[in-house]
Amino acid sequence: LTEDLLIAALRTIVEGSSPDGVVASRPIVLGIGDDAAVWQPSRSHLSVISTDALVDGVHFFADRMDAQAIGHRAMAANVSDIAAMGARPVLATVALGLTSDAREAWIVALYRGMQELAARYGVRIVGGDITRAPAMTLAITVVGEVRRTHLRRRDAGRPGDVVAVTGPLGASRAGLEILRGGVEGVAEEAHAQAVRAFERPEPRVREGRFLGASVNARAMMDCSDGLSTDITRLAQASGCGVLIEHVPVHAAAAAVAEAVGADACAYALNGGEDFELIVTVDPRAFRYLAQRFAKHCGRELLRIGVLEKNEGLRLREASGEVRSIPPAGWDHFASLK
Amino acid sequence: LTEDLLIAALRTIVEGSSPDGVVASRPIVLGIGDDAAVWQPSRSHLSVISTDALVDGVHFFADRMDAQAIGHRAMAANVSDIAAMGARPVLATVALGLTSDAREAWIVALYRGMQELAARYGVRIVGGDITRAPAMTLAITVVGEVRRTHLRRRDAGRPGDVVAVTGPLGASRAGLEILRGGVEGVAEEAHAQAVRAFERPEPRVREGRFLGASVNARAMMDCSDGLSTDITRLAQASGCGVLIEHVPVHAAAAAVAEAVGADACAYALNGGEDFELIVTVDPRAFRYLAQRFAKHCGRELLRIGVLEKNEGLRLREASGEVRSIPPAGWDHFASLK
Repeated sequence: LTEDLLIAALRTIVEGSSPDGVVASRPIVLGIGDDAAVWQPSRSHLSVISTDALVDGVHFFADRMDAQAIGHRAMAANVSDIAAMGARPVLATVALGLTSDAREAWIVALYRGMQELAARYGVRIVGGDITRAPAMTLAITVVGEVRRTHLRRRDAGRPGDVVAVTGPLGASRAGLEILRGGVEGVAEEAHAQAVRAFERPEPRVREGRFLGASVNARAMMDCSDGLSTDITRLAQASGCGVLIEHVPVHAAAAAVAEAVGADACAYALNGGEDFELIVTVDPRAFRYLAQRFAKHCGRELLRIGVLEKNEGLRLREASGEVRSIPPAGWDHFASLK
Repeated sequence: LTEDLLIAALRTIVEGSSPDGVVASRPIVLGIGDDAAVWQPSRSHLSVISTDALVDGVHFFADRMDAQAIGHRAMAANVSDIAAMGARPVLATVALGLTSDAREAWIVALYRGMQELAARYGVRIVGGDITRAPAMTLAITVVGEVRRTHLRRRDAGRPGDVVAVTGPLGASRAGLEILRGGVEGVAEEAHAQAVRAFERPEPRVREGRFLGASVNARAMMDCSDGLSTDITRLAQASGCGVLIEHVPVHAAAAAVAEAVGADACAYALNGGEDFELIVTVDPRAFRYLAQRFAKHCGRELLRIGVLEKNEGLRLREASGEVRSIPPAGWDHFASLK
């Protein structure tokens, strides 16, 4: 098996019915097989680009997850970054690092997982690179398009904005706990939901585009590193602080946390990889926007707090007491130590 | 040191005078610091995208090369892919895998090398990702823009086309030999040229754009995996074979090969990482194009052979004898074994 043969095999996965790599439909002009892929963004739109790297043992566990789930998650994480800009994802490139014992069936399953998620959100995998590496490594770059007025940055929040998320949090962290082993006594449905949240998270593309199209949605980002860390980043970029009044805990997170004697609220605050979007909204418009959101997206836009003038992250406890808390989500660099 | 602090440090390197990440000038609308970077390609142009991954011990040697050279090479390899499409490189994202013993000074030097090369060719590093990894890993994605009529693919060659390269080959392979140690008796200038070709290769951006603008230049790609492998890929994509009549050996490659008793022609044919461009040209127009090329680019467009109707790779020896040879350049997947 040579590089060219492997690339040809992966091409048939990602290109489906057009194996010659040349796709007639806009915007992909030229796919896998040349020095670079080519596309034509539409004229009235901006292009956005995001890159994410995943390493075996750090971001996924090749020995405990099936390859298709790893591919799904990796692509979902990148598509989520595009959704968090209010944009429509268009194409992706994949840089794949393979260990010397990598099997072709594993690689093909990985690509199937990436391709399935990508295709569902209209994303074409147009190229990439394959190399040897001491651990399985995936670096994905996704490009998207967005109308200039629909772009949502993380620095556009204002004091007084309502802070909301597109869904309850903590289920992915609960799923990780289950995969680590030793979790017993969780009801079947909650168990399945938690594992699914970890292995097959869904990027909020429809939700991101809907919020990007609303003039009352101001700042937006995704919640991949954990709510406490990501909301702090959004608030800092916007020159604000934030008061969290309510942490929406996913039912599966609550069930797993109870079974292992952990704090479900900590799962939701610090767990990360939920891929819900965090958005700040003009307070006068929140109620109306949340109604339209529920109708359009089929899920709740959950109010979690407000942006404040003074910097810092504060949490209102169930008792009503307000205290400062540290951002305690995932820090990629801390994990280097 | 947290991830956010490291990213802030790297931002100041790649953003120079605009530390807030917001760049007023087209085409970069939004750089590092959000979920994704944003740019606006110009209206009459196509965008092209290319991804390349580099791993310590496979593509570079962290213990034998300075970090700045590693950064330079990695960025040069990616910019070269864009040049090979006839395009102008515009922006890059960087996914960086760091081992647990990575030092900040090393990382900063790596970014300096990437940034210096990028800036010289008008490329902005607009974002990326940093993670822990069992080996230093760099995955770079570069995006470029090209006028629709200037795009040069590898599948547009025709039988009878003159095949040419933008410079003599083999110097990078010779530089690798020197860095491996034990090479003695090479004249100082050849020694320096070979090391420079390996550590600080120059992508042929000006040459690629010039050739893309010529209607008589038909197929084009870069020569990163070695002439014999890459010309075979171009010929196969074009449904042709190729006869190599002359292999232009770099003077430094000849000097090093002589010193170690190796075949300089093999360095040039199979060595790889020279980053010269391979182009096929309408035979009636070659002489005129080569004259204009030399004037515009300040270097020779070197004729190396012709595309043939029958598939395969053939070499004409100095004796005049023609024999079939195998593509024997770099195969990333073979290196996995």
